[in-house]
Amino acid sequence: MIVVAAVALIALAVAGGLVREVLRADQGTERMQNIARAVQEGAAAYLTRQFRTLAIFVVVIPFLLLLLPGETDVRIGRSIFFVVGAVFSALTGFMGMWLAVRGNVRVAAAARDTGEKRAMRIAFRTGGVAGMFTVGLGLLGAAVVVFLYQGDAPGVLEGFGFGAALLAMFMRVGGGIFTKAADVGADLVGKVEQGIPEDDPRNAATIADNVGDNVGDCAGMAADLFESYAVMLVASLILGKVAFGEQGLIFPLIVPMIGVVTAIIGIFVTGLRDRDRSGMSAINRSFFISAAISAVLVAAAAFWYLPDSFGALSGSAVKSDADPRLIAIGAVLIGLVLASAIQLLTGYFTETNRRPVREIGESSATGPATVILAGISVGLESAVYSALIIAGAVYGAFLLGFGNVTIALFAVALAGTGLLTTVGVIVSMDTFGPVSDNAQGIAEMSGDVEGEGARVLTSLDAVGNTTKAITKGIAIATAVLAATALFGAFRTAVESQLAQTSSFSLSIDQPNVLVGLVVGAAVVFLFAGLAIMAVGRAAMRVVFEVRDQFRNNPGIMDGSVKPEYGRVVDICTRDSLRELATPGLLAVMTPIAVGFAFGYAPLGAFLAGAIACGTLMAVFLANSGGAWDNAKKLVEDGHHGGKGSEAHAATVIGDTVGDPFKDTAGPAINPLIKVMNLVALLVAPSVVLYAGNAALRVGVTVFALAVVVGAIVVSKRRSATSEPANNHKREQTPVAS
Amino acid sequence: MIVVAAVALIALAVAGGLVREVLRADQGTERMQNIARAVQEGAAAYLTRQFRTLAIFVVVIPFLLLLLPGETDVRIGRSIFFVVGAVFSALTGFMGMWLAVRGNVRVAAAARDTGEKRAMRIAFRTGGVAGMFTVGLGLLGAAVVVFLYQGDAPGVLEGFGFGAALLAMFMRVGGGIFTKAADVGADLVGKVEQGIPEDDPRNAATIADNVGDNVGDCAGMAADLFESYAVMLVASLILGKVAFGEQGLIFPLIVPMIGVVTAIIGIFVTGLRDRDRSGMSAINRSFFISAAISAVLVAAAAFWYLPDSFGALSGSAVKSDADPRLIAIGAVLIGLVLASAIQLLTGYFTETNRRPVREIGESSATGPATVILAGISVGLESAVYSALIIAGAVYGAFLLGFGNVTIALFAVALAGTGLLTTVGVIVSMDTFGPVSDNAQGIAEMSGDVEGEGARVLTSLDAVGNTTKAITKGIAIATAVLAATALFGAFRTAVESQLAQTSSFSLSIDQPNVLVGLVVGAAVVFLFAGLAIMAVGRAAMRVVFEVRDQFRNNPGIMDGSVKPEYGRVVDICTRDSLRELATPGLLAVMTPIAVGFAFGYAPLGAFLAGAIACGTLMAVFLANSGGAWDNAKKLVEDGHHGGKGSEAHAATVIGDTVGDPFKDTAGPAINPLIKVMNLVALLVAPSVVLYAGNAALRVGVTVFALAVVVGAIVVSKRRSATSEPANNHKREQTPVAS
Repeated sequence: MIVVAAVALIALAVAGGLVREVLRADQGTERMQNIARAVQEGAAAYLTRQFRTLAIFVVVIPFLLLLLPGETDVRIGRSIFFVVGAVFSALTGFMGMWLAVRGNVRVAAAARDTGEKRAMRIAFRTGGVAGMFTVGLGLLGAAVVVFLYQGDAPGVLEGFGFGAALLAMFMRVGGGIFTKAADVGADLVGKVEQGIPEDDPRNAATIADNVGDNVGDCAGMAADLFESYAVMLVASLILGKVAFGEQGLIFPLIVPMIGVVTAIIGIFVTGLRDRDRSGMSAINRSFFISAAISAVLVAAAAFWYLPDSFGALSGSAVKSDADPRLIAIGAVLIGLVLASAIQLLTGYFTETNRRPVREIGESSATGPATVILAGISVGLESAVYSALIIAGAVYGAFLLGFGNVTIALFAVALAGTGLLTTVGVIVSMDTFGPVSDNAQGIAEMSGDVEGEGARVLTSLDAVGNTTKAITKGIAIATAVLAATALFGAFRTAVESQLAQTSSFSLSIDQPNVLVGLVVGAAVVFLFAGLAIMAVGRAAMRVVFEVRDQFRNNPGIMDGSVKPEYGRVVDICTRDSLRELATPGLLAVMTPIAVGFAFGYAPLGAFLAGAIACGTLMAVFLANSGGAWDNAKKLVEDGHHGGKGSEAHAATVIGDTVGDPFKDTAGPAINPLIKVMNLVALLVAPSVVLYAGNAALRVGVTVFALAVVVGAIVVSKRRSATSEPANNHKREQTPVAS
Repeated sequence: MIVVAAVALIALAVAGGLVREVLRADQGTERMQNIARAVQEGAAAYLTRQFRTLAIFVVVIPFLLLLLPGETDVRIGRSIFFVVGAVFSALTGFMGMWLAVRGNVRVAAAARDTGEKRAMRIAFRTGGVAGMFTVGLGLLGAAVVVFLYQGDAPGVLEGFGFGAALLAMFMRVGGGIFTKAADVGADLVGKVEQGIPEDDPRNAATIADNVGDNVGDCAGMAADLFESYAVMLVASLILGKVAFGEQGLIFPLIVPMIGVVTAIIGIFVTGLRDRDRSGMSAINRSFFISAAISAVLVAAAAFWYLPDSFGALSGSAVKSDADPRLIAIGAVLIGLVLASAIQLLTGYFTETNRRPVREIGESSATGPATVILAGISVGLESAVYSALIIAGAVYGAFLLGFGNVTIALFAVALAGTGLLTTVGVIVSMDTFGPVSDNAQGIAEMSGDVEGEGARVLTSLDAVGNTTKAITKGIAIATAVLAATALFGAFRTAVESQLAQTSSFSLSIDQPNVLVGLVVGAAVVFLFAGLAIMAVGRAAMRVVFEVRDQFRNNPGIMDGSVKPEYGRVVDICTRDSLRELATPGLLAVMTPIAVGFAFGYAPLGAFLAGAIACGTLMAVFLANSGGAWDNAKKLVEDGHHGGKGSEAHAATVIGDTVGDPFKDTAGPAINPLIKVMNLVALLVAPSVVLYAGNAALRVGVTVFALAVVVGAIVVSKRRSATSEPANNHKREQTPVAS
C-alpha cells in the first residue's frame, strides 16, 4: 500500500518536474505573449467562475449523502471523500489547463525558433503534466481510502468516485458548451459570412475560441479522464474484495501503479526521430511501448502477488478451480487489446486518407446536405463497430469467469484497469491537442510565425485532432467497463437490503423493467439533445455579438481597430455556466426518480439502457464530428476544388454541425453514464428499504421530476425571452454576407 | 368467429365500393391523364420488380421454417401462413397504391372543377381503400388461423406475423430508398442548383419523385401498418390464450372487429364542414369520433362477452381476484389514450405554428449548420417524450396485472389492439398524404390547375404532411407494445424447452446478457446508418443523371424538349432493389447469430436493446425530418426572408437531410423491430435445444454473420466501383450552379 502511495507521489513529483521544464522554455515575441496572456486570463476567469458555481454542489451533496442509510463511519467517510474526489477532479483539470495555457505560446515559440522536435517535445510534456496529475491523484485517493477504511473501503470509494464523476461531468458539459459556442460562432461569422481565415485577429471570437480549447478540450477532458480512472478503480476495488478477498483490494491498485511507471516511461520516450513521418508516429510508438511494458509487468506482478488457486486467497468467498493469476493476466490483456483496437478503429473512421472520410469528401460534390448525410451514416456505422469491440471485450472478460458471475464481473473491472494503464499517455496525447491547436492560433493571430514554423504547427495541430478522437473512444470504453462492473456493486447493495423472500433479478421480460430500460436510453437522447441545443443557443449569441462588432466598428475589418475579444469571452462564460445546470440535474435526478417510482429492478435496467444507448450515441457523435472535421481538411488540402470552392463551403457546414457533436454532447456522455451509475448505487439501498413507504416514494419522485422538468422549462423560457431581441436587432440591420 | 370473419369480408366489400366511387370521378385534362399514366406505369413496374425480387424469400423461408423443431401440423401451418401473411402484406400495399395512383389525378381534377370538399372526399376515400384492406385482411387471416388451429393457433400465427412483417420491412426499406433517392436527387439539382420550383416538368426526376411517393409513402406504409396490425393480433392471441383461456382467443379479435366498424364510420363521416379551418379539422374529427365509439363498444363487448372473475374463464391458468372485464376495458382505453397522446405530441413538435419548428426557422438566420443542429436537438428531445408516453402506457398496462406478469403482458397486448382500433382511419389519413402530394405534383406539371384549385391542393398537401408524421408515431408505438407483449411468447417458447434445472431469466446484471443488449441497440444504429447511406448513394446517381440531361440537352431548360423521365425511374428502381438486401438480411440474421452464439438470455436482451433504442431512433428520425420539412414551409410562407432568401436555402438543406430520416430509416425501424422479435421467437426453442451442440452453434453463427458481413461488404464495394466513374464524369463537365 505504501509503495502504491509512493508511486502516486512520484507521479506528482514528475508532474512538478515537467512543469519546471515547460516553464523554462522561451515565450516568443511580445505580441505572442500578449495573446497568450489574454487566453490565460479568459481561461482562468472561466474556471474560477465555474468552480464558484459548482461549489454549491460540493457543499450540499455531502450533507445529502449523510441521509443515506448505513454505518455512520462509512457515511461520514463517503461524504468527506466525495469532496476529495470533486476537488481532485477539479485540480486535475485546473493544473492541466494552467500549464496548457502557458505551454501553448512556448510551443509556438519553439516552432518558430528551434524546429519541430523541440515544439513537439514541449507540447507533449505539457500534456504529460495532466497525465501525471490524473494517475497520481487517482491512485493516491484510492490508496488512502483503502488504507484508512480497509474492509469498509467500498462504501467510501463510492463517494470518491461520485465526487470525481459529478465534477468531471459539469466540467465536460460547461467547457464543451463554452468551446463550441465560441468555435461555431467564430466560424459562422468569420469563415462563412466574412470569408476570413480561422484564428484571424479581426474576428472578435478568436480569443474565446482559444480559451474554449483550454477549458473544454483540456480542463474538461483531464477531469473526465481522472474521473474514468477513479471510477474504474472504485469499481474494481469493490468487486475485488468480493472475488479475490484481501488480495482483491490490493491487486487493482498494483495494475494502475504499473501504469504510472509505464506512463512516465512513455512520456519520456516520446520524441521525434528523423525517420518519423509525423508526430503521430512518435505518439503511437510511445503508446504501444508503454502498453507492451504494462502487459509484461502486470503478468510478473500477478505471478508474484497472487496465489495459484482461489482456495489460497484469504477472504474470498468464491469457489472455482480456475487459476486467479491467469484470470487476472487475461483480463488486463483484454483491456490492453481493447485500447489498441479502439485506437486503430477510430483512426480508420476519422483519418483523412481512409475511405470513410474520403467518401464524405466526395459527397461534397452535391452540397452540404449530402455531406451531413454521409457523416451521419459514417458515424452511426462506426459507433456499431466500436460498441461491438467493447461488447466483445466484456464478453471475453465474462468468459474468464468460467460461469461464475462474481469472477466475471471482477474480470470486467480488471480489463478496465488494464485499459487504464495507458491513461497517463492517453491524457498526455489528448492535452497535446488543445496545446498545439492554441499554439497555431497564437502564431496565426500574432503573425510572428511564418514559413517552416507555421508548417510545423499545422502538422502538430492535425496530429492533435487524431489523438483527441482516440481519447474519446478510450473514455467511452472505460465507461462501459466501469458501468458493467458496477452492476456487481449494485447487486450487492440491493441484496443486502432485500428481505430473504425475494431474490435479485433484473429480468427484462417484466414490462416494468423494460420500461426502466427505455427510460435509461431516453435520458441519453435527452442529454445529447439538450447539450446540442445549448451550444446552438450560445453560438447564436456569439454570432450576433461578432456581427454587431463588425457592423458598429468598420475599423475592425481593415485591421486598424482591435475587436473587443473580452465581450465574447464573457458571453461564452455566462451562457455555458447557465446552460450546464439542466443536463447536470438530469443526470443526478433521473436515477433517483426511476428508483423511487418504479423500484430497484427498473432502476438497474435504466442503467443498462443508458449504457447501451450511451455507448452508441457517444461514439456516433464523436466519430461523425471527427470525420466531418477531417473531410474539411481533405478539401482544404486541395481535393474536390480546395479552399473557397463550394465543396469547401459544404464541408465547413459539416464541420460546424460536428463541433457540438464531438466536443460537447459526445464526450459528456462518458461522465453522464458514470454519474447515473453512482447515483443509482448510492440510492439503491434506500430504494429497497423504503419500497413499502408510498408517501416517501411519491415525495422523492415528485421532487426529483420537478427539479428536472423545472430546469428544462427554465432553460427553454430563457431561449424564448432572449432570442427574439437578438433576432429583432438582426432584422433591423442586415449584414451583407 | 364467423361474425369476425364476416366483418372482415364486409371491410373488403366496403373497399370495393370505395374503389368504384373513386374510379367514377372525373380524370381531368389530357395532359393530366398523361402524367398520371406515367406515374402509374412507373409505380406498377417498380412494385412488380420488387415482388419478383422478394419472391425468393417467400419461396425459400417456408422450407427453412419447416426445419424448426415442433409438431408437424403446426410447422406446416406456420409455413403456409407465412406465405399468406407475406401475400396479404403485399396485397395491401399493392391495392392501396393501385388506387392511389388513380385517385391522385381525380383529386387534382376535382380541385380544379368542383372545389375543396369534393377533392378532400376523393382523397380520403382513396386512402380508405388501403385502410379497409389493412383491417379486412389482417382480421380475416387471424380469424382463419384461430378457426382452423384452435389451441395450436399461436405457433401458426407466428408464421403469419413473420410473413407480414418481413415483406413489410422490405417494402418499407425499398420504397423508402426509392422515394427519397428521387426526392433528394430532384431537390438537389432542381431547387438548389437550377433554382426551378418543385415538380417543375423540366426536372427529369419529377416523375420518379411522384412514383416514389406511391411506392414508399403509400405501398410501403400500407404494408407496414398491415404488418403492425397482424403482429399485434398475433401477440395478443398468443398471450390471450395463456391469460384468459379460450375467451382470450376470441376477445382480441372482437376489439379490432369493433375497430373495423368504427373505421367504416370514421371514413364515411369524414367530410369538410363549412366552419372547418382546414382538412386537418375534418380528419381529427373523424379520428376522435371513431376512437370514442370504439371505447364505448369495447366496454359493452367486455361486459357482454367476458365473465366477472378469472375463475369463470375456461382454460385460464391465472389465479387473480381482479375483474377480467375491467382489466380488458382499462387496457383498451390505455391504447386509445396513447394513440391520442401521440397524435397531439407529434403535432406539437412538427406543426408549423408551434415553438419547435419556429425555433428551427429562426436558426436559419445563421445558416444551414444551425438549422441542422436545431432540428437534431428537437428530434432528440421529442423522441424522449414519445418514448416516455409509450413507456407510460406499458407501465399502465403492467399495473393492470396487479403483480401477475401473465395478465400484465396480455394487458400490454390488449392496449396494442386498442391502439389499433384506430388503424383503419390512420391508414386512410396516411394514404391521404401521398395522394394529395401527387395531386399537387400532377397539377403543377400539367399547368392545367390554377387559382383556387391550386390553393386547395396546397392546403391538402400540408394536411398530408401532418398526417404522415402522426402515422409514424402510432406505428412505432404499436411496435413497442407488440414487442413487449411478445416477450411473453418468448418466455413460453424458451421455458417449454428448458430443462427443469434452470429457470428463465433475462437478468441484465449478467455481463453476457448486457452484451446482448448492447448488440441489439447497435443493430438499430447500423440499420439506420445503412439505410441513410443507401439513399445518399442512390440520390447521387439521380443527381448525376439529371445534371447530364440538363447539360446534354439544353432544350430541356427552355421547355422545348421533354426530359427522359424513365431513366431516373429506372435508376431509382434498380438501386433501391439492390440496396434493400443489406438492411433486410441484417434484421433476419442478427437474432439468429446472437441466439446461437450467446444463448437465449442475451437474445432476449438483444430484443430489449433493439426496442429501447429503436423507439427513440425511429421517433428522432421521423420528428427531426418532419420539423425540418415544416421549417422550410414556414420560410416559404414568407417568414425570415421567404422563398429565395438565404434562410430558405438553409431550410431546404435541412429538409433534404431530413428526407431519408423521416421516410426511409425512421419508418423502417418499426417493421425491423417486429422482424427481429419474430425471428427470435421462432429460433428460441432451437437455441435452447441445441445449447450443448457446439459444432451446430458455431456453424449457424458463422453462417449468419457471414451473410450479414458479406452483404455489407458487397454494398460498400458497389459504391466504391460506381462512384468514381460518376465523379470522373462530373469533374470533366462542371455544372454552373
